[in-house]
Amino acid sequence: MNLSIRNQLPGTVTAVTAGVAMASVKVRLAGGQEITAAVTREAVKELGLAAGSSVRALVKATEVALATGPVEGLSIRNRLPGTVMGVTTGEAMATVRVGVVGGELTAAVTREAVDDLGLFPGSEVVALVKSTEISLAAG
Amino acid sequence: MNLSIRNQLPGTVTAVTAGVAMASVKVRLAGGQEITAAVTREAVKELGLAAGSSVRALVKATEVALATGPVEGLSIRNRLPGTVMGVTTGEAMATVRVGVVGGELTAAVTREAVDDLGLFPGSEVVALVKSTEISLAAG
Amino acid sequence: MNLSIRNQLPGTVTAVTAGVAMASVKVRLAGGQEITAAVTREAVKELGLAAGSSVRALVKATEVALATGPVEGLSIRNRLPGTVMGVTTGEAMATVRVGVVGGELTAAVTREAVDDLGLFPGSEVVALVKSTEISLAAG
Repeated sequence: MNLSIRNQLPGTVTAVTAGVAMASVKVRLAGGQEITAAVTREAVKELGLAAGSSVRALVKATEVALATGPVEGLSIRNRLPGTVMGVTTGEAMATVRVGVVGGELTAAVTREAVDDLGLFPGSEVVALVKSTEISLAAG
Repeated sequence: MNLSIRNQLPGTVTAVTAGVAMASVKVRLAGGQEITAAVTREAVKELGLAAGSSVRALVKATEVALATGPVEGLSIRNRLPGTVMGVTTGEAMATVRVGVVGGELTAAVTREAVDDLGLFPGSEVVALVKSTEISLAAG
Repeated sequence: MNLSIRNQLPGTVTAVTAGVAMASVKVRLAGGQEITAAVTREAVKELGLAAGSSVRALVKATEVALATGPVEGLSIRNRLPGTVMGVTTGEAMATVRVGVVGGELTAAVTREAVDDLGLFPGSEVVALVKSTEISLAAG
């Protein structure tokens, strides 16, 4: 299956906390980073997710935000430091490729954000993804 | 590949409009509904998406909103009328299963929204999804 | 902290409802509007969020939808009335700046949505944001 979802990072589930409707799933990526995905409890059950499960974390490019400074006091759980590798700028939107440990991410942000942050190849950034925006693929 | 993404609706691409960074892809679902997905231009190229391509539209449950009244004058492109089939309520969040023509959708919304809209099995709703929240799987 | 996230509205937490995996956080914005953010329970704990906490509500431009008509019977909790201040149109996407009480928002929507709603500077709109799309920055 080929997915339009640009960002697919392999990892291993380390913990699952299940509520009635939702569950939060901790994943250690192959690159060593820890991330959290908030998915439905039903998905956890159907995919049989538990500590040790091999997964890929999937993130749509439109769900990736970028920070250029230190990040603190933020509810956004997932923070992958990296380096900008390329910027493609349209009239309204731009896509930014970011190299992170163990892979690469694409962020689709407004053109204005790229201008504002002064992003160019070589910029140090932190890719930010809200837990609710991370999907998991098993197997 | 098993995906945590609850909502996977088969369809056929009817048109692709590509900008510099992003592209909008029109899909006619098997159930007859027309939807629009905003994905990166790179994804369109890599998946070889064009009119006639078979795809599945993927939508994370957290990205589905529900309306009980008439929907008009709204930027949200994707509107799938359906009927509530089940509601699972947690403390903070709830998941709502909605039967639509040709399939089923799960929406993860706040518990408050469920109370406020008075959703129960049998409620008529319209599932709303922003184009930027729809991913596509090819093949 | 420099963020690509265009929309940052200051406010004060008024209530926190925590489930097992997720929590919903009520915030009164400086402009007087009430909003709800659905974040992980862990984020609430780590940021020490409680009634009275000063926060900034962060919303990626791609997560903001716009309505021109009356909004009712909608699961989307967050509705900020405002006035369009500018529209930048690309081939596939467009960004719309909206002045709201106490600040400004940017929405990234499809070009088609802008055409369809007939948006131009001066248009009265309601900016809509799903609770799961709001992040919080403390301090």
